[in-house]
Amino acid sequence: MIDRETLRWNGWGWRAHKEPAEDAPALWSYLAETLGCGALPLEGPAELDERAFPPSRLTEDAREAFARAAPLTEAPGPRAFAARGRSYRDLLDLRALHFQPAPDAVVSPRTSAAVQAVIDAARDHDIAVVPFGGGTSVVGGVTPLDGWKQAVIALDTTRLTGILAIDRISMTATLQAGLYGPLLEQRLQEQGLTLGHFPQSFEFSTLGGWIAARGAGQQSNRYGKAEAWLVSARLATPSGPWATEGFPASAAGPRLTDLVAGSEGTLGLITDATVRVREKAKARDYRAWVFKGFEEGADVIRRIVQAGIPVSTLRLSDADETFFYGKLSRLVGGVKLKHRVEDVYLAFRGLSGSKCALIAGTEGDLDLVAYARNRMSEIAAASGGMPAGEGPALKWFAGRFHGPYLRDPMLDRGLGVDTLETAASWTDLMKVYHAVRRALAGAMATQATPSGSRGIVLAHISHSYPGGASLYFTYVWRRAADREAAITQWEAIKRAAGDAIAASGGTISHHHGIGTDHAPWMAGEKGPQGMSALRALKHALDPTGIMNPGKLGL
Amino acid sequence: MIDRETLRWNGWGWRAHKEPAEDAPALWSYLAETLGCGALPLEGPAELDERAFPPSRLTEDAREAFARAAPLTEAPGPRAFAARGRSYRDLLDLRALHFQPAPDAVVSPRTSAAVQAVIDAARDHDIAVVPFGGGTSVVGGVTPLDGWKQAVIALDTTRLTGILAIDRISMTATLQAGLYGPLLEQRLQEQGLTLGHFPQSFEFSTLGGWIAARGAGQQSNRYGKAEAWLVSARLATPSGPWATEGFPASAAGPRLTDLVAGSEGTLGLITDATVRVREKAKARDYRAWVFKGFEEGADVIRRIVQAGIPVSTLRLSDADETFFYGKLSRLVGGVKLKHRVEDVYLAFRGLSGSKCALIAGTEGDLDLVAYARNRMSEIAAASGGMPAGEGPALKWFAGRFHGPYLRDPMLDRGLGVDTLETAASWTDLMKVYHAVRRALAGAMATQATPSGSRGIVLAHISHSYPGGASLYFTYVWRRAADREAAITQWEAIKRAAGDAIAASGGTISHHHGIGTDHAPWMAGEKGPQGMSALRALKHALDPTGIMNPGKLGL
Repeated sequence: MIDRETLRWNGWGWRAHKEPAEDAPALWSYLAETLGCGALPLEGPAELDERAFPPSRLTEDAREAFARAAPLTEAPGPRAFAARGRSYRDLLDLRALHFQPAPDAVVSPRTSAAVQAVIDAARDHDIAVVPFGGGTSVVGGVTPLDGWKQAVIALDTTRLTGILAIDRISMTATLQAGLYGPLLEQRLQEQGLTLGHFPQSFEFSTLGGWIAARGAGQQSNRYGKAEAWLVSARLATPSGPWATEGFPASAAGPRLTDLVAGSEGTLGLITDATVRVREKAKARDYRAWVFKGFEEGADVIRRIVQAGIPVSTLRLSDADETFFYGKLSRLVGGVKLKHRVEDVYLAFRGLSGSKCALIAGTEGDLDLVAYARNRMSEIAAASGGMPAGEGPALKWFAGRFHGPYLRDPMLDRGLGVDTLETAASWTDLMKVYHAVRRALAGAMATQATPSGSRGIVLAHISHSYPGGASLYFTYVWRRAADREAAITQWEAIKRAAGDAIAASGGTISHHHGIGTDHAPWMAGEKGPQGMSALRALKHALDPTGIMNPGKLGL
Repeated sequence: MIDRETLRWNGWGWRAHKEPAEDAPALWSYLAETLGCGALPLEGPAELDERAFPPSRLTEDAREAFARAAPLTEAPGPRAFAARGRSYRDLLDLRALHFQPAPDAVVSPRTSAAVQAVIDAARDHDIAVVPFGGGTSVVGGVTPLDGWKQAVIALDTTRLTGILAIDRISMTATLQAGLYGPLLEQRLQEQGLTLGHFPQSFEFSTLGGWIAARGAGQQSNRYGKAEAWLVSARLATPSGPWATEGFPASAAGPRLTDLVAGSEGTLGLITDATVRVREKAKARDYRAWVFKGFEEGADVIRRIVQAGIPVSTLRLSDADETFFYGKLSRLVGGVKLKHRVEDVYLAFRGLSGSKCALIAGTEGDLDLVAYARNRMSEIAAASGGMPAGEGPALKWFAGRFHGPYLRDPMLDRGLGVDTLETAASWTDLMKVYHAVRRALAGAMATQATPSGSRGIVLAHISHSYPGGASLYFTYVWRRAADREAAITQWEAIKRAAGDAIAASGGTISHHHGIGTDHAPWMAGEKGPQGMSALRALKHALDPTGIMNPGKLGL
């Protein structure tokens, strides 16, 4: 369990983290120039003012009912931390001390039984429950919404940190849902095992959140998305405890465990899960290649995964992203470079004519790694890839969790910055790529201030499958001055991108989830029959709609 | 599309098939001796007597409504074929001309739109619909049940045979659900592709059935169970057409496509599906090993799959099965042995002290096959496996669809014969194996006639996963004389086995499905919350409960 006092309540990660970009004025000049938006004056977020915090709306009865089940606090500090996730929209609220609505209390049960008791109390008092683990949702997944119930609690899962069972024969572990990534991996790796789930949020997110949002780690080619490593789950629901099937395979009706992955707290709260684990990799090979174009690189990824080569990571940046991070690394080059994600791209600067960087990694036992490395190299070389050695890839690997720290100093300097991601079939992938780039660039040109400024769009492929791949976009623009105008501006940009994704054949999210930000596109993906099925399912488990109301559009 | 006149309406497969065991009296003597039940007189099934067939209960209105949508017949021949699947229980009914209930008509739409129109008409007239593809369910999945609606139609899907799209970039095919296995593979293989789904019923079962029952092919280690290769599905439901998501991966809420796999027609009828296809394997290596014991062999399978070695088939017979099929092959050895599944085991007879036969296969490109073969051999040899060469494995491969033909001559000679299968974690697998063997042997000793006779129990592992494996049991006993007594006898044996599976940690089915036979154990696996979720889901898509009522216990 992490002491939340050591974390930023209104930004990313550790309070103690010093972001090197802070001390790199050349970076900010470069960004201002590229965006065409003039100087970027420094203006930090507001300090937490406890007087600005709304009073709790819990009745005495409800407070007592919750307190009988688990520790409860209505103090502004914990409520502020749990008031929002870490989406761009959330950060605009937090930086402006906009806490309407905020959770009326944070309740922190220590056992699965206590979670069920808290949910029973919420049901009996008709109070909404927002499950809150690490709180790193970037799509509004843990943001309480108005208009559903008279009061709302944040149900803090991070005291559920037990390792309930490890089965070395069947290679599964049963773990409580509130385990943060580092502690979870430490406990497994002490026994020579790994879950292998390393999302960018790894240090600050929890097992339950990974499952609830159908997350993906950076080695997902080997270890799988959450729905792939999830064997079974136990949930506390307003209709009682629900344990899903845990067989290695079955034909006993539809697999209901699949409904838990992606449920985002709307059906119940995941208290613990049995997950597939593996032997900690004995060998690892990460190396970089460069390709003339994004399409050529994507084609190499497709060939590798369709040939069934056992890789762990294939991460291809487009030309703009490869260039941008190379530039960024030079501009903050005065500071210590170790552990900086952007540094990876330095190595590519000298390779003229080659524009798109691919990090290709494989992990496992020695034989498997040797086999995969050789096969990957054959395919990459046959498609005109130029080897760029292990250095850039290992640097990327070392700094792979640090990207989000760059967001806060950008926000401090009047920029807007967000990411979005999708997945599509190989057939549609380049269509989606171009459509989203065009939509983002167009909307940022329209929305960014001052008029005439432009946005930056970077993209990469980070997850791939025999049938298709993900696309991840980072985009930066000059933010409108006040919170409401900034929200309107962001909504227009987000809407343009989301509509482009839907129109070109992508899913609205590959691994961030739906939350509130993506709900407008959810119904289109699922169709009327699908949404009707989901609503029926929610009604069966949560008849009065207390569980994370409004999320998934439910 | 297969002309049903060429198929047996009351038994397995082609009318024209000549089963070699018919002409092997030594086999029947051996079985009588082993079972301790005296002689086995030959008594074939009743001929179809059209006068015994119940009249159709369709009203004039309903008949006209269906006929407007699709060709309809109320003739006894087609109704008899669609009256039951091919479970042991079904065969007892068919052989005794017990058609209560029977479908009142067989409706055979030619397009997805016509399927929807038929279901709309059934909804409007409150008539039950049993989806009927190949009709090879061995768990009562296509048997109409009394007590739900005033009339019931069999919705014959086998005129839906279109190849709607093939996407060689994303490696998917969109296929209509009524395609039988051989035509489906022929069409794909003409283009160098394969689905790779080869269940024992391959020749006589359809794509829609494979998905609806969450089937598994014999090369499932490579190609996956139905739920693994299913990309998306389109269904006709009483609430309208339903198309599920088709992304290579997504985090947009729970994946509803997963609800289609295993739905057994209870939510709607699958009209077409997009499936993952692969390049037809360029290389193939199948070879046999023998192990001293079942546990040793199982452990080798576990090590192979947990090491991530890309295999296609790992099939391990226990000592009794290895011995029995060796014996069987000798006893029918006078007839042509080619294409006989049992022949495989001949090769093991001479290997003293080694009892359990493993068929280990891998398919794919040359490099992959070489890599897998070498790694598998290392692991097998390190665990005391003795290589038995390619011959037995290739013979098994050639005859792998012929097993079910042996059932009818056994029934003709007064025997009961059934199979059941389960899956469990590696940790529970041997516990389940022994519990089921004990339960079957005990129940057959109690139930078989005459008193004092005993049953035969054979078992193998045929599907394996990092977390566990399937177990497949074949069991033979002396059947009670008349139909009702035989049903009571079988129910007692089945109940003992099912209870043993549930008590020892197995699922009630790995790939046969639930149908009617397994419904008593379904609720236990899903739990009250799970069943409530499934009922709600069904109600959303099929509010009046016309779709395959009673199946899955819904």
